Amino acid sequence: MSFRFQVEAREGEARAGRLFTPHGEVQTPVFMPVGTLATVKGVPQDTLEELGVQVLLNNTYHLYLRPGVEMVRQLGGVQKFMSWDHPILTDSGGFQVFSLSDLRKVTENGVAFRSHLDGSSHFFSPESAIAAEISLGADIIMAFDECTEHPAEYARTRDSMEMTLRWARRSKEYLEAHKHEVPWFAGRGESVQTLFGIVQGGMFADLRRESAQRTVELDFPGYAIGGLSVGEPRPMTYEMVDAAIRFLPPDKPRYLMGVGTPEEIVHYVAMGVDMMDCVLPTRAARHGLLFTSEGRITIKNARFAQDDGPLDPNCRCKVCARYSRAYLRHLYASNELLAQVLNTIHNLAYYLDTMRRVRQAILLGEFAIFLSGVRPPHLSVS
Amino acid sequence: MSFRFQVEAREGEARAGRLFTPHGEVQTPVFMPVGTLATVKGVPQDTLEELGVQVLLNNTYHLYLRPGVEMVRQLGGVQKFMSWDHPILTDSGGFQVFSLSDLRKVTENGVAFRSHLDGSSHFFSPESAIAAEISLGADIIMAFDECTEHPAEYARTRDSMEMTLRWARRSKEYLEAHKHEVPWFAGRGESVQTLFGIVQGGMFADLRRESAQRTVELDFPGYAIGGLSVGEPRPMTYEMVDAAIRFLPPDKPRYLMGVGTPEEIVHYVAMGVDMMDCVLPTRAARHGLLFTSEGRITIKNARFAQDDGPLDPNCRCKVCARYSRAYLRHLYASNELLAQVLNTIHNLAYYLDTMRRVRQAILLGEFAIFLSGVRPPHLSVS
Repeated sequence: MSFRFQVEAREGEARAGRLFTPHGEVQTPVFMPVGTLATVKGVPQDTLEELGVQVLLNNTYHLYLRPGVEMVRQLGGVQKFMSWDHPILTDSGGFQVFSLSDLRKVTENGVAFRSHLDGSSHFFSPESAIAAEISLGADIIMAFDECTEHPAEYARTRDSMEMTLRWARRSKEYLEAHKHEVPWFAGRGESVQTLFGIVQGGMFADLRRESAQRTVELDFPGYAIGGLSVGEPRPMTYEMVDAAIRFLPPDKPRYLMGVGTPEEIVHYVAMGVDMMDCVLPTRAARHGLLFTSEGRITIKNARFAQDDGPLDPNCRCKVCARYSRAYLRHLYASNELLAQVLNTIHNLAYYLDTMRRVRQAILLGEFAIFLSGVRPPHLSVS
Repeated sequence: MSFRFQVEAREGEARAGRLFTPHGEVQTPVFMPVGTLATVKGVPQDTLEELGVQVLLNNTYHLYLRPGVEMVRQLGGVQKFMSWDHPILTDSGGFQVFSLSDLRKVTENGVAFRSHLDGSSHFFSPESAIAAEISLGADIIMAFDECTEHPAEYARTRDSMEMTLRWARRSKEYLEAHKHEVPWFAGRGESVQTLFGIVQGGMFADLRRESAQRTVELDFPGYAIGGLSVGEPRPMTYEMVDAAIRFLPPDKPRYLMGVGTPEEIVHYVAMGVDMMDCVLPTRAARHGLLFTSEGRITIKNARFAQDDGPLDPNCRCKVCARYSRAYLRHLYASNELLAQVLNTIHNLAYYLDTMRRVRQAILLGEFAIFLSGVRPPHLSVS
């Protein structure tokens, strides 16, 4: 199956659609759980399937260091490696390397960086990053970009945006020349990977607009908005999404990278976003912060010690169906492994249920009503 | 359902039977996974059910400290607390307190000890330990005993054994007077908990024999052999089991505490043992040591990095059905939570499958043949 995106319903700017990829179909809008090292921390793949996870995000930077992209290529690609016969998306490593701050040095050619594991020296160029993504073999891969730091001056942000555009072209050219090298090429009817371009432009609306327009001129099958959720106030995030998204083509999928809270993801859908990923549900779960229909819960709180009710009475996940708040509190307070497992399952269920309800509302033309019931995102705690 | 034990088949000293408890039936011989703090570390309860776990062991000492036995009692008992509507067995805390070594002081009345968590002072007597076990509400509970340290002199061991006999009587009398206080009393047809006596006697065969005979005189519905696997050489363990077990009544269940390797548990069944528990499969799993039909595997070993075969080609557990050694190696080497989860599931599957095959062999009269294929246990690594 080659890549295709089909919009099935619209309401305002919001869209419900389907992505077709070599490893299967994805119903959008979609939330993609983060499985950095080819695992969503603590959750077996069959449980992810039960939860209705459609597509996972893996981090190229991390897999490049461990177990190495050549290793994954030899094992048939990341889907086979982690036994996940469904779509996967990889980032390009650009954002991860950006996060290393003083362990990196950026030039026109690429980024020299040191491993956070052992301090060893490495170099990512657009070409080598895409080569790594080809070896990993995700269905959707991301162009190599520079995520501009925040805050940044206008001139610096413009230069960075220009370089990201040049890197986008190089990413595209490299994939075009090497696309048949994806590990599962022969096994999937000669399908190839799909490369998304990434809009940058920091916190300047005119640069966001220009980045969107010029990235679209490069003609990608999908577009991401990157470089947000990097410490800026939330209203600014919305402003930047708005500045960029109106210049993205309506018939191509739009991926907002690295967001957000349950309330925020609903509002991003309202702005026309189709795909999102975030470590928040999984990371928060491991720290005992749980999302429920009645608000956020810090499960360690002593008031749950004797609470024999479910975590979220409106949730039908296997955690809420079986365990009490008192038990979950005990597991967390006792630092038991199962706390992290169960908390993660619930938080993912909450995000995925939210997205299913959003999609259903759009299909029924009831999204405006749905949206009106969601707390304005700028008030939410992230 | 009140407690009952029924032997269905015998071959040599080995028996296949059924235990009936207030929370359901257990087919013996049975291996009981250890769920110290009301959780088998990293494994959700539905997965334990899928694995065919019939009965869990919880540790009274640990639950007494966290979340507290009164808390568990108010929440309906440990089965309800952990949402495990199947049999549970609790130890009395005696062995756990024994493990605290210099944090404890033993007198005729009981044991003063300090919490390993915060150093706070506590006291367990036979009466207070049984009271704790009643509050927790396990189906099978253990008499409060002194586990004699190893090595120990003869006179010291005899004194300790005598005290354990006096404590066994006190344990029994306390339960008799308070048995209706079990949290689920009304809900389970007025069934009560079943108390097992524990044979001690250190590493002296004559004391083991005397302990067995005099514990049987106290008349318990089941008998445990305790105080083994405390550092003695394995042939001595066998000698002590042999010295005791021949004096236990053939119509009562026999529980050998805290053993063993997969090979050893088969040989203990051959000696007439019906029940065993051990942290080995779960603890070893968390350290990357996996039991397979082809021997032990240290999954971290670099030779598995590119091995796309299953962990154990003869195992039908969900880990072996889905994941490769290369992936399991990657998870372990990357210190990923899922390594501990999947490794634990496999090791438990291996133990439970072993025990199912043992039981089946006894029922078919083929246990001698089965046993001849199991490596002599004194050669095995524990």
